[in-house]
Amino acid sequence: MSKPFVIAITMGDPGGVGPEIIAKALKKERPASSCAFLVIGTREVCERLRKRIGLFLSFREWNGMGKAALKGGGIYFLDISKGLRQGGKFQIGKISVENGSLALAAIERAARLAKQKIIQAIVTAPVNKAAMRLVDKKFIGHTEFFAQKEKVKNYAMMFSSSKLKVTLATIHVPLKKVSMLLSAKGIEEKILLTHDALRRGFDIKKPRLAVCALNPHGKEAGIEEGKTIEPAVRRAQKKGVDVVGPQSADQLFHAAYTGKYDALICMYHDQALGPFKMVAFNEGVNITLGLPYVRTSPDHGTAFDIAYQDKADPSSMLAALRLAKSLTLSRYAHAD
Amino acid sequence: MSKPFVIAITMGDPGGVGPEIIAKALKKERPASSCAFLVIGTREVCERLRKRIGLFLSFREWNGMGKAALKGGGIYFLDISKGLRQGGKFQIGKISVENGSLALAAIERAARLAKQKIIQAIVTAPVNKAAMRLVDKKFIGHTEFFAQKEKVKNYAMMFSSSKLKVTLATIHVPLKKVSMLLSAKGIEEKILLTHDALRRGFDIKKPRLAVCALNPHGKEAGIEEGKTIEPAVRRAQKKGVDVVGPQSADQLFHAAYTGKYDALICMYHDQALGPFKMVAFNEGVNITLGLPYVRTSPDHGTAFDIAYQDKADPSSMLAALRLAKSLTLSRYAHAD
Repeated sequence: MSKPFVIAITMGDPGGVGPEIIAKALKKERPASSCAFLVIGTREVCERLRKRIGLFLSFREWNGMGKAALKGGGIYFLDISKGLRQGGKFQIGKISVENGSLALAAIERAARLAKQKIIQAIVTAPVNKAAMRLVDKKFIGHTEFFAQKEKVKNYAMMFSSSKLKVTLATIHVPLKKVSMLLSAKGIEEKILLTHDALRRGFDIKKPRLAVCALNPHGKEAGIEEGKTIEPAVRRAQKKGVDVVGPQSADQLFHAAYTGKYDALICMYHDQALGPFKMVAFNEGVNITLGLPYVRTSPDHGTAFDIAYQDKADPSSMLAALRLAKSLTLSRYAHAD
Repeated sequence: MSKPFVIAITMGDPGGVGPEIIAKALKKERPASSCAFLVIGTREVCERLRKRIGLFLSFREWNGMGKAALKGGGIYFLDISKGLRQGGKFQIGKISVENGSLALAAIERAARLAKQKIIQAIVTAPVNKAAMRLVDKKFIGHTEFFAQKEKVKNYAMMFSSSKLKVTLATIHVPLKKVSMLLSAKGIEEKILLTHDALRRGFDIKKPRLAVCALNPHGKEAGIEEGKTIEPAVRRAQKKGVDVVGPQSADQLFHAAYTGKYDALICMYHDQALGPFKMVAFNEGVNITLGLPYVRTSPDHGTAFDIAYQDKADPSSMLAALRLAKSLTLSRYAHAD
């Protein structure tokens, strides 16, 4: 029997909805025999979930040593609080150093395990950025974190749902800086990463892509279309990618949604996320492209206001977990 | 019997889909007995529609003199080519001076009739901006045109559909200029205009409004939220408007779509139009707020590539016409 793929699931901020949506999602989705799940977090959250809302899930403990113990079909738990001075201590629904430390320790461990090839995919539950910055001033987001750990410069954030996939050319930047952060090279890279992800991860043989204009009605109101976006599209076309654009964003989204394109490359966060969340509010998955492993996450935040109240909807986490599974299988199939 | 309301319908660029969608819409929507429709255009387009695609619609000619001739329930036609040296000459599917001249003459006439109180509403078919600028260098769009004619400084562009209404704080400007064009006063005005329109035009007694942040995840990535948008929201709240924000655009759209808000105030064109067109692709209507009369239009362009081929979908024009009717009736009821 070949070794199973291992998908790590980091618990996110322990005071948010992360632990709850993980537990709920794992009740609905079991690993196949070729796959193991490894939850990375602290035992304390399990205790609290059980006491507060009666949510209970059985894991087998894994001590972090040796992949051989991780069997296909199993759900394992790695407690990262042991190495921390605070232990598993955290606050529910609050921004705190303890919460940030635990959340950070979980993703640091996941990144290390990925480098060691012990895990093949990471699904991350949401962290609170303010809490993360209390323990790591330079923390931007999961995407940038994993890219830095792998020293990958060419990466991208994609959002995926059944009917719409979008890749971002810029991420969490002030709107007025978007124009100066765009480059033909950067946009070309996002096109190529998207093309590659659709082929290798989604099994789309000839992906059809389109690139959004930056300005309203495209060229009509701006210069970046001609100067930066068109050259990027042309270069990607020369490399054999089926890609058109730049075109008006408001037109492209409907075209993509109704099947004309497999994915869109968007110039900035809200250009992509506004339309995306209209049609994929509970099933949206965030994917990092360009890493040597698979990484997905739900497309929502920690929702401190409803944490540990049995109110959190696990749909997006469940979608992230299922997508991680299929992306991992597909990536390995293509590697054969 | 009281005089009927008159709704003018300008034909737009004669070489685009305007004439076709007007003729198709008027086959489905008749004026009520309290209302008359007045199509403003040139006879030549009717001839071409008939010859090319067998589309025929009977109008009564109106010579532009005297409102008394416009009876409730009637559809009238005003030929504006008579005063032009070119007559009714135009090109199908092309940007031309002749097309621009005819389109401009139609909306100029409509603006004049509105000032004379002969018409109470204007529904505009799409124009081609490049063609318009061949005859009027300063032409920006219908919205700005009618506002200038009425010397109205405080106006706004709103998009309306059954499930989502959005007002724009800035319109067709380069994305990188949006930040510097926003002002607390301007945003407050858009909030108040939207509030007023929902009450007077849509019969919503206590409209619930929300204002979008400019930057991704709101304040997290920018300063305009605290400096400009929050003060605007607070001022409007002090005037008794039920309005919240600024909040992440990607969150607000779904909330508005599912009924939490009656309308959103958006900071820029694509922030509004991307999500809007996802859910209202064929029924979206563009409304100008702040004019002394009603003005609506379909939310699409001239579509030169399919003009005079019987391919144009009149849904958005039909929605614009129906909305103009109900907004006019509602406005007059409130004026009583």
